Amino acid sequence: MGLRDEIWEQPDVLRGVLTSQREVVRRAADAIRARDIRFVLLAARGTSDHAGVYAQYVWGARNGLPVALAAPSLFSIYGSAPRLADALVVGISQSGQSPDVVSVIAEGRRQGALTLAVTNDPASPLATTAEFVLDIHAGAERAVAATKTYTAELFSLAALSAALRGDGDELRALEQVPEAVRQALALEPEVERLAARLSAMSQAVVLGRGFNYANAHEWALKLKELTYVLADPYSAADFQHGPIAIVDPGFPVLVLAPGGAALPDLLGLMRRLTQEYAAELLVFSDADAALALGNGGALRLPAGLPEWLTPLVSIIPAQLFCYHLARAKGLDTEAPRHIRKVTLTK
Amino acid sequence: MGLRDEIWEQPDVLRGVLTSQREVVRRAADAIRARDIRFVLLAARGTSDHAGVYAQYVWGARNGLPVALAAPSLFSIYGSAPRLADALVVGISQSGQSPDVVSVIAEGRRQGALTLAVTNDPASPLATTAEFVLDIHAGAERAVAATKTYTAELFSLAALSAALRGDGDELRALEQVPEAVRQALALEPEVERLAARLSAMSQAVVLGRGFNYANAHEWALKLKELTYVLADPYSAADFQHGPIAIVDPGFPVLVLAPGGAALPDLLGLMRRLTQEYAAELLVFSDADAALALGNGGALRLPAGLPEWLTPLVSIIPAQLFCYHLARAKGLDTEAPRHIRKVTLTK
Repeated sequence: MGLRDEIWEQPDVLRGVLTSQREVVRRAADAIRARDIRFVLLAARGTSDHAGVYAQYVWGARNGLPVALAAPSLFSIYGSAPRLADALVVGISQSGQSPDVVSVIAEGRRQGALTLAVTNDPASPLATTAEFVLDIHAGAERAVAATKTYTAELFSLAALSAALRGDGDELRALEQVPEAVRQALALEPEVERLAARLSAMSQAVVLGRGFNYANAHEWALKLKELTYVLADPYSAADFQHGPIAIVDPGFPVLVLAPGGAALPDLLGLMRRLTQEYAAELLVFSDADAALALGNGGALRLPAGLPEWLTPLVSIIPAQLFCYHLARAKGLDTEAPRHIRKVTLTK
Repeated sequence: MGLRDEIWEQPDVLRGVLTSQREVVRRAADAIRARDIRFVLLAARGTSDHAGVYAQYVWGARNGLPVALAAPSLFSIYGSAPRLADALVVGISQSGQSPDVVSVIAEGRRQGALTLAVTNDPASPLATTAEFVLDIHAGAERAVAATKTYTAELFSLAALSAALRGDGDELRALEQVPEAVRQALALEPEVERLAARLSAMSQAVVLGRGFNYANAHEWALKLKELTYVLADPYSAADFQHGPIAIVDPGFPVLVLAPGGAALPDLLGLMRRLTQEYAAELLVFSDADAALALGNGGALRLPAGLPEWLTPLVSIIPAQLFCYHLARAKGLDTEAPRHIRKVTLTK
């Protein structure tokens, strides 16, 4: 069992989330509706923090919930907590161990806030501290780089969004995800060729927008962890406010551009990057207009999901790309240097 | 008048904030106290977004206000806004022009939220949309890279924090900041030597924590804009959750480490980076223990301010470092490629 096996487990893991989480997701949604929740405070680190960014967009755009990503050091270093009684306080952690994330949930509980843990270990300190627990049931994740627990976290957060809307169409859309993920996995040979072609990459920018902004962060983190490429994630908007200055001819820009409301704006930036600055774009998309701009490579994603669920599919070739790029660079995909599976920060 | 002049104007600009903003800051603080504000939604892009990160920490740690950094695309792309009636909605923008930031304030106003603009142009769309306006009075900023408007934004946000606590000691601490900034500017010859020594730098990580986390983002952005160095900002905690894998021997790590509650944790990471991974650390600090770890250079910051105000001082040598590094690399400090002073994103 290694990283690649865990990447390939994802259709089964997501099917498991659908069946095992249905009841607790429904109860959590009922509890959220029953309280007068004004905002969400969400604490997480690393990959789980990117799942938090997804929640910020999905719960914000589809459930009217403002989501604040917590600065855990406010609690752990400065010993000062904002007033949380009207909040839903969420902690996301694969291991459920990191003391800083647990401390945010503990403070929420102390103040009488509704608390929710999203974790792969229902016996962890995070799970035992929170009132509601979404156990992502991903099975042991042995590779240091998280893959299946990321998509399982995204999917649990998406399921809660659907339950809050209480809409049968949405539940049916969720049920299509595991098969779409399987189709994305089948792109592996093509992804492996793209990674081999880009094996000399040492730095990059990763762009995403809207629901796929979280994945820009996650792809960049996987590149750093697995391939030691210094990859910087940006939304299409923020990138134009300064950082675009770093782009010189041939600079690699990796773009997650599934079709949807976020695409037109991203296309404008992609044209500018290729036509004016001769950047080299690697594009993952289901839209012809985006794929045509992939002068450094283009991969056609499976289509058919509503935009808010596309991140579950677009991250799959990004994970495979990092795995194969690490191999092309002769690196150990199972044990990246300097990091351990569980990091305990205060 | 160029970038360096604007950097040197900062003591005068900050004195201007103190005198010109006293009355409006007091009125805004009264309005916040009078309403039952549950959370803050803050919209900004680029450098102003980093001022927003500072507000998240300062208002969170010192005023008990949870601050959510807005995802403007929720409003502008997905046309969906969370419920904001109990919120303080803040927009920060030097020019006051960017439509996405204005749209967040407009939605807050529509829903009856308390709204506040922080801008250098009191006639801008942002200022005319908001109920309260902190005019940072920084004078025209001609350099594309923002410097004096960043510190003026930080200082306005700090002044509002002090007014919310209504504490005379805090106002006296604010009054010490312009002189501390002047002392930091006097370090320029030393900063210039450090920049010359590091002129071959092409990538870097910038670390900060707590109140100085905002400055890690700002220093990294200035490096990208002015020197085309791919610089990645991290808190000491997040960096250990994966990205630390990119550090190989000699990798440049720039550290903002003023003394205070956030320092012990940062010191642990700095030791690990130098002793275990042979990273090259450039350290700005007023603490001996931190300076001793600067194997790539160390700059002693002026001491004496309370920790929450240290970002106003620690950013000064970072700005000067970017200016001199750009010159050492033979780049145009006044007109970085690809970017304009005002960027309008939707």
